[in-house]
Amino acid sequence: MVRAPVAVTELVERARDGQPRAVAKLISLVEDAHPSLREVAAALTPYTGGARVIGLTGPPGVGKSTSTSMLLSTLRADGKRVGVLAIDPTSPFSGGALLGDRIRMTEHATDPGVFIRSMATRGHLGGLAWATPQAVRVLDAVGFDVVLVETVGVGQSEVDVVRLADTTVVLLAPGMGDGIQAAKAGVLEIADVFVVNKADRDGAEVVVRDLKQMISFARGEIRGESWRQPIVRTVASQGEGAGDLVRALAEHHDWLVAHGELARRRAARAAAEVEAIVLRRIRSELADLNGAGLPVLADQVVNRELDPYAAADKLIDELRAGG
Amino acid sequence: MVRAPVAVTELVERARDGQPRAVAKLISLVEDAHPSLREVAAALTPYTGGARVIGLTGPPGVGKSTSTSMLLSTLRADGKRVGVLAIDPTSPFSGGALLGDRIRMTEHATDPGVFIRSMATRGHLGGLAWATPQAVRVLDAVGFDVVLVETVGVGQSEVDVVRLADTTVVLLAPGMGDGIQAAKAGVLEIADVFVVNKADRDGAEVVVRDLKQMISFARGEIRGESWRQPIVRTVASQGEGAGDLVRALAEHHDWLVAHGELARRRAARAAAEVEAIVLRRIRSELADLNGAGLPVLADQVVNRELDPYAAADKLIDELRAGG
Repeated sequence: MVRAPVAVTELVERARDGQPRAVAKLISLVEDAHPSLREVAAALTPYTGGARVIGLTGPPGVGKSTSTSMLLSTLRADGKRVGVLAIDPTSPFSGGALLGDRIRMTEHATDPGVFIRSMATRGHLGGLAWATPQAVRVLDAVGFDVVLVETVGVGQSEVDVVRLADTTVVLLAPGMGDGIQAAKAGVLEIADVFVVNKADRDGAEVVVRDLKQMISFARGEIRGESWRQPIVRTVASQGEGAGDLVRALAEHHDWLVAHGELARRRAARAAAEVEAIVLRRIRSELADLNGAGLPVLADQVVNRELDPYAAADKLIDELRAGG
Repeated sequence: MVRAPVAVTELVERARDGQPRAVAKLISLVEDAHPSLREVAAALTPYTGGARVIGLTGPPGVGKSTSTSMLLSTLRADGKRVGVLAIDPTSPFSGGALLGDRIRMTEHATDPGVFIRSMATRGHLGGLAWATPQAVRVLDAVGFDVVLVETVGVGQSEVDVVRLADTTVVLLAPGMGDGIQAAKAGVLEIADVFVVNKADRDGAEVVVRDLKQMISFARGEIRGESWRQPIVRTVASQGEGAGDLVRALAEHHDWLVAHGELARRRAARAAAEVEAIVLRRIRSELADLNGAGLPVLADQVVNRELDPYAAADKLIDELRAGG
């Protein structure tokens, strides 16, 4: 593929000047895995570390987009510059992401303090694990105070992405069928803050009570730390509970700082980012190997001449020799 | 972690003799990423290539488990030995897999020609991409004629897993809300056979008509080949349409063979399996590196002393030196 050269220094300057098209271009470079990303990362790195990264996740229908919008508006009213990444696992069976994105884009289109982007990474070599931390890095470096990472899907990979956040918000709502039962310990592991959205509906208090019970059962077991996961009631469509949510997030941020946990989480995010870059490069080298490359070895495995571990040995030898 | 040694040769012999506990033990070795897998793979490889691998996927609530059970019973009545892998992405927001599995286990518990297993791979290094092809290999080698791979989730990773199949069945049903609209081109890309389940309900014919339209629009665009994706109507809970589905699968198998596509798909599956083994080994080497290993480099990235690409360069140099 022929790629157009990119004037990286100028692009980074324009993005840091607040030009949304330059920010969008930088994110597109990430999505396209453009060769200039190496230069982009070097140019951005001195400016990183200022943004708070907040992940939002929860089952479909819980009101994630509405809650993200509510949080966005509240943080904007407080003068914060806010970037939003809506992670779209682009399952062939989900499809709401881009629509929701377009609606929100319209709402905030004229606000230079807001940047909203869906990350569509279908078929991407390395996928979400590769693209998301680098996109967060872009928004951090160009000066957003808060980066909201909203996951559209419900799979493990999306949960992993949310784990890249400083603070993870898990949304639940009444009337989601087996929502809570199904959620079980999994949400306790990933949630720093719980939101029970649609709190004006029947059953909301049951969700809150069940959550409280789960939290108290799990205390000391799943999370040994001193952070007590708060439960915030919201009606995101009406903006109700926004202040409580922002306060809970601020408290968690203070706790992270006080306990050295912020540094630990950011190191984990950087490690995941570096590892994904390494693995992507190795996959790309695997694809480029001559001689007994992957396709040849795969045929030998199909024909029962090699077992897959022996084939893997040969590939690793070739990778090493290629260095 | 201390691991018990495994008498691989004996285990493989017992599994090939049809002892379900030995089969279960082999799959557990895959799930645990046991060191003896290397020996297991070598012992199994001579016996591989006999099984037809069929993937089933579709949005939640469409009746995947019921359809898998229906297909299983029909294939059994035809004398086929059938292995089922229910892939559980273990999202904290899904939780139906194990229950459905237990119900089905009970139904077929006394049938030695059936083996059913949920693959729970939460937090697994390399995840589903690593475990699934190796589990398929086990069931293939120990003598199952058909391996059904059913995905519980809806994310990209699950779709990738289904792509490991010889034939992929996409299930849809009426009353799934924006099911078809949302599904769009994605399902056309992955489906070899469509099933419209719950075909006795209102709206089923609308789903069929929409699908037909999508297929005819996409003809020549998305799939250039001569295979025309059939649409099979079923009521899986009543066993209706089972014969039609089995026929459609047999026709697709014949088409795969006639067009050299079976060999191509199996080579792709073997390539994915080998690549996953390579990547997992590299991740494990990354974790074991001394000196400027990943945690040290990640701290330098957080402290803006290194950008992530420069950190990746250093890691790759260390990996090469470590060889």
